[in-house]
Amino acid sequence: MKMMRQAISLEEAQQKIQEITIKSKIANCLLSECLAEILAEDIYAPFSLPAFRRSGYDGYGISAADDHGFPKTFQVVEQIGAGNVYEKTLRPNQAVRIMTGAMVPDGVDKIIMLEKTKPIEKDKVLILESERNSNITPIGEEFKQGELLLAKGSQLNAGGMSLLAAFGYQRCLIKSKPKVAILATGSELLSPGEPIEIGKIYNSNSMLLAGLVKENGGIVSYMGTIEDNREAIEQQFHQLAKEVDVILTTGGVSVGDFDFLAAIAVAQDTCLFNKLAMRPGSPTTAFVFEQAPVLALSGNPGACFTGFYLLVEPLLQRYRGLSSKMRQTKMKLAEAYTKTTDFDRYVRGITINNTIQAVGSDKSSALGNLPVTEGFFKIPAGQTCASDQEVDVCLLPFK
Amino acid sequence: MKMMRQAISLEEAQQKIQEITIKSKIANCLLSECLAEILAEDIYAPFSLPAFRRSGYDGYGISAADDHGFPKTFQVVEQIGAGNVYEKTLRPNQAVRIMTGAMVPDGVDKIIMLEKTKPIEKDKVLILESERNSNITPIGEEFKQGELLLAKGSQLNAGGMSLLAAFGYQRCLIKSKPKVAILATGSELLSPGEPIEIGKIYNSNSMLLAGLVKENGGIVSYMGTIEDNREAIEQQFHQLAKEVDVILTTGGVSVGDFDFLAAIAVAQDTCLFNKLAMRPGSPTTAFVFEQAPVLALSGNPGACFTGFYLLVEPLLQRYRGLSSKMRQTKMKLAEAYTKTTDFDRYVRGITINNTIQAVGSDKSSALGNLPVTEGFFKIPAGQTCASDQEVDVCLLPFK
Repeated sequence: MKMMRQAISLEEAQQKIQEITIKSKIANCLLSECLAEILAEDIYAPFSLPAFRRSGYDGYGISAADDHGFPKTFQVVEQIGAGNVYEKTLRPNQAVRIMTGAMVPDGVDKIIMLEKTKPIEKDKVLILESERNSNITPIGEEFKQGELLLAKGSQLNAGGMSLLAAFGYQRCLIKSKPKVAILATGSELLSPGEPIEIGKIYNSNSMLLAGLVKENGGIVSYMGTIEDNREAIEQQFHQLAKEVDVILTTGGVSVGDFDFLAAIAVAQDTCLFNKLAMRPGSPTTAFVFEQAPVLALSGNPGACFTGFYLLVEPLLQRYRGLSSKMRQTKMKLAEAYTKTTDFDRYVRGITINNTIQAVGSDKSSALGNLPVTEGFFKIPAGQTCASDQEVDVCLLPFK
Repeated sequence: MKMMRQAISLEEAQQKIQEITIKSKIANCLLSECLAEILAEDIYAPFSLPAFRRSGYDGYGISAADDHGFPKTFQVVEQIGAGNVYEKTLRPNQAVRIMTGAMVPDGVDKIIMLEKTKPIEKDKVLILESERNSNITPIGEEFKQGELLLAKGSQLNAGGMSLLAAFGYQRCLIKSKPKVAILATGSELLSPGEPIEIGKIYNSNSMLLAGLVKENGGIVSYMGTIEDNREAIEQQFHQLAKEVDVILTTGGVSVGDFDFLAAIAVAQDTCLFNKLAMRPGSPTTAFVFEQAPVLALSGNPGACFTGFYLLVEPLLQRYRGLSSKMRQTKMKLAEAYTKTTDFDRYVRGITINNTIQAVGSDKSSALGNLPVTEGFFKIPAGQTCASDQEVDVCLLPFK
């Protein structure tokens, strides 16, 4: 099952994935479930806010006609708590006791703060002095009816959710996260929790990809293994293509005799690539199976991790109309990198004082550095890089 | 119910909250549920990794004794897939076909990559040339048995979870997020979804706090309202203090006649403060009710938001042994701030090119700027700030 493979550059591969037609979906969700989701609609103010003239303080409301000649005694005709409505008109020397946030009755033109008053007896108050401001928030001071509250494409945070709640919204339309299936290949794989067996290894890639999908805007909707059997794999893909948006696989893409996945890929009209001119992860393969993009990542953890960020993350973001959250930049290398390779190499690195340096092993199989990797720096094919030399860097998204 | 209040500084208030004794808890969780959780134990490698000599490539394994005189024909005595074990010893001119990741049998000293071989007939292969490297990963190259994998206090990301999975871990101990109860006060409050009523407002603070708690390392385990009745409130606190770690309330802390919460606070021996020398949110109150910290935030959304970040966020982080994720810094003001106040004012701001400027209204009641606020800048009591003047800034955590 050895086959010819034509290596393409990472940039070409990214472009081909960018060109896959995807179907974005929209969901109508309870606002309380929408934290960090992306709005799929513009949302407008259904009424002005405040919707009524609102008292800014606890105090006494008086009319403009009475706003002179202090200190002066007023008759207190009503206590207006927040939420209460007083519909009568004030007569001369009448005041209303009013609380912060309460609706100011018509005919009340100023709120005198409690601190400037002195209760005399039941239903009587001495107002010591006036106020410079009315202490009344006018209707629509913050939002006019029909004004845009949040635009389509905004990410909902606590503040955004509270803004919609303030206008009585209980639900909103959001862009659905892509549903992702994660399939691991390899008869050498044990599941965590199983007893260890000589020659076998625990499957860490499924956990890796599940975490990466969740961290990067996807939903893990299926996890399983791929049998070493071409018909069974195709049958499984056929089922998954109906249920999920994206299929990720690990392993089975090399030139080994059991690498069935590579064979399925080349049999598709829609095979995008089956070799990348990059390390780690040169056998990474991509195709579309009955409309579902399949990204077949290396079974080597370091390569799987790198392939996820460089190829899968931008695809997942696209389902919600977002761009990749990887940050492209240039940084100086803190330590020389002296190994040359045939292909461009993306080395896992950590940043220190705005420089980057390799962290842990750069081997494709290494996984000890995955918890601490902050980004990748690129060593072009055939080159080495001296310390202080500037390199291209892709930083991982902020978490 | 007007009462004397002694205003303390924000720094004093933060210190008092920092001194509340809290009970941290630990949970034993499925690893797959641990994304972004904080490890409560050091985790060590239960075995070396690789646990066996591992083939780095697809190819043919030969003995050191046979590693000369190429090109040379070998008899292929076995096919070793990943996960398989071959226990016999190679004789002269024998080779094993071996896959990437498979266990290298004793007596095999080098893997010749497939590209440097040519199958001749069934069970025979022509090896064209040798390799510089053995292409065998030795036992323990990445981790030695007993080596620390992840330290207590690490935050689990996808990479960390996969590292533990690689060692067969299925569960781990994590620091529990604090359980938080959110209680809104005020008979003026409508729930989102209810029909609007004149004089009333939709409760947006509960949604705000629920989002803020989730964004900042807490679990919302109760949401409700507080009755305007002192005995009922105390009864509710009594119940909640048994069930949750922290109680947050909004509203009811001012000097209004219905502000029962302020009265409950001062009745506690454990009242930490009931007035802050800061705006917005000067009536913010804190006490401990039967071991549960109660942070009674303003009912004004802007003040509630500011109080959460300056007082509650550090408390929530402390339950998991973490420091506040707010970032203290200094920045230049992009635009002059000309209003003076009696107390230090924390103005909601956005950053532009490493400067900060006020965003939206600085009113305590304003909520339009909550979705976009990136931090607070401090205008000291009695001062104004010119543009380009340096101010103290608290930036919100990265999201």
